[in-house]
Amino acid sequence: MNAASPKKPIAVVLLSGGLDSATAMAMARDADFDPRPLAVDYGQRHSSELAAAARVAKAAGVPLKVLPMDLRAIGGSALTDDIAVPEGESLEEHGDIPVTYVPARNTVMLSLALGYAEVLGAGDIFIGVNAVDYSGYPDCRPEYIEAYETMANLATKAAVEGRRLKIHTPLIDLTKAEIISEGTRLGVDYALTVSCYQADTDGRACGRCDSCQIRRAGFEAAAVPDPTRYR
Amino acid sequence: MNAASPKKPIAVVLLSGGLDSATAMAMARDADFDPRPLAVDYGQRHSSELAAAARVAKAAGVPLKVLPMDLRAIGGSALTDDIAVPEGESLEEHGDIPVTYVPARNTVMLSLALGYAEVLGAGDIFIGVNAVDYSGYPDCRPEYIEAYETMANLATKAAVEGRRLKIHTPLIDLTKAEIISEGTRLGVDYALTVSCYQADTDGRACGRCDSCQIRRAGFEAAAVPDPTRYR
Repeated sequence: MNAASPKKPIAVVLLSGGLDSATAMAMARDADFDPRPLAVDYGQRHSSELAAAARVAKAAGVPLKVLPMDLRAIGGSALTDDIAVPEGESLEEHGDIPVTYVPARNTVMLSLALGYAEVLGAGDIFIGVNAVDYSGYPDCRPEYIEAYETMANLATKAAVEGRRLKIHTPLIDLTKAEIISEGTRLGVDYALTVSCYQADTDGRACGRCDSCQIRRAGFEAAAVPDPTRYR
Repeated sequence: MNAASPKKPIAVVLLSGGLDSATAMAMARDADFDPRPLAVDYGQRHSSELAAAARVAKAAGVPLKVLPMDLRAIGGSALTDDIAVPEGESLEEHGDIPVTYVPARNTVMLSLALGYAEVLGAGDIFIGVNAVDYSGYPDCRPEYIEAYETMANLATKAAVEGRRLKIHTPLIDLTKAEIISEGTRLGVDYALTVSCYQADTDGRACGRCDSCQIRRAGFEAAAVPDPTRYR
């Protein structure tokens, strides 16, 4: 990837350190935006996600903004509490909201991205939500994103002044294999990313949790060698 | 005020330590909700707001949840940066967005309240926004609140399961004098609250900033003695 150009329009990109958001950032750049990644330190049980976000931003040559927002203080999810993360079953098999759901997660993240966009004077936000693999998450659905965008266009000084804010969800209809194929075409180094819900301190994946299974199946379906470091 | 009853429906109340949100909490209780105040430590230049929120919650006999969210890391406002706070002019006189505007402030606050409401199983959020004195703030307008509520009802597990979320803005059409009259009727002790943008460490007000002027004029118009401690 090339270094950011100051002449391109800035887009805030929510970067988690996972495969999806790394791809979304590459797609933002491919769409001729100057990506400004924002990572939210929302109290994950492991810091490997943030370390991965830093690696991905560094590889792209763009400054990473990290905002602390300890969602553990709100509670209510296996990702931030001590509830056991389910292994050996896909998200779809739950037939309900996954226990890894974080309360209002995307709403909080998009709100912080909205504030950052306002400060940067940016009219574009990229978020790597996906409605295919994550159909159980209400805040990954297109109708949710549309409603968020409508609200955001009433929320800010920029909106009052008539400058539209656009929320881009380039992955929303893609399968994991399609995301990996597109990211590979754009030069994303997936070895830098971490998807595992319970990666160890070195960022090595368990290979068993929902997220690991979806990721591994995605590389297989895309016929791309899986660069994930398993422990 | 009486102690909270567990049999009443829970309402999350955004509590800033100021006059408005203290009144909104009293109105939530008067509407037969069990109020659960949430204060966001968003990197104010002074901690007197949070101390005031704690006093107000204690006086009401309800547990205060404080979430750290350092909006200084986003930047862009006189309330959190080193931009000078304007003195000696009312908000209306700016004829534009006040410099005390915090980027995406209410959007971030409501998003945290939404997460807290989800964890508590609450379907109601109270926020003391006011479109009369704060007409310059885009995120204090009724159309913004309505759009937020629409989005929130698509965002959460509760929404997916058909339980509606309601955002209450009982102050939105009230003048400062009407707010003070109503709060006084409901027994709010305004001596516990802090409105000043630059209160000292003891919570004493400057008497000169926009917020102090609006507050003082409100007590005068309501014909209620001003309990504010000025320095």
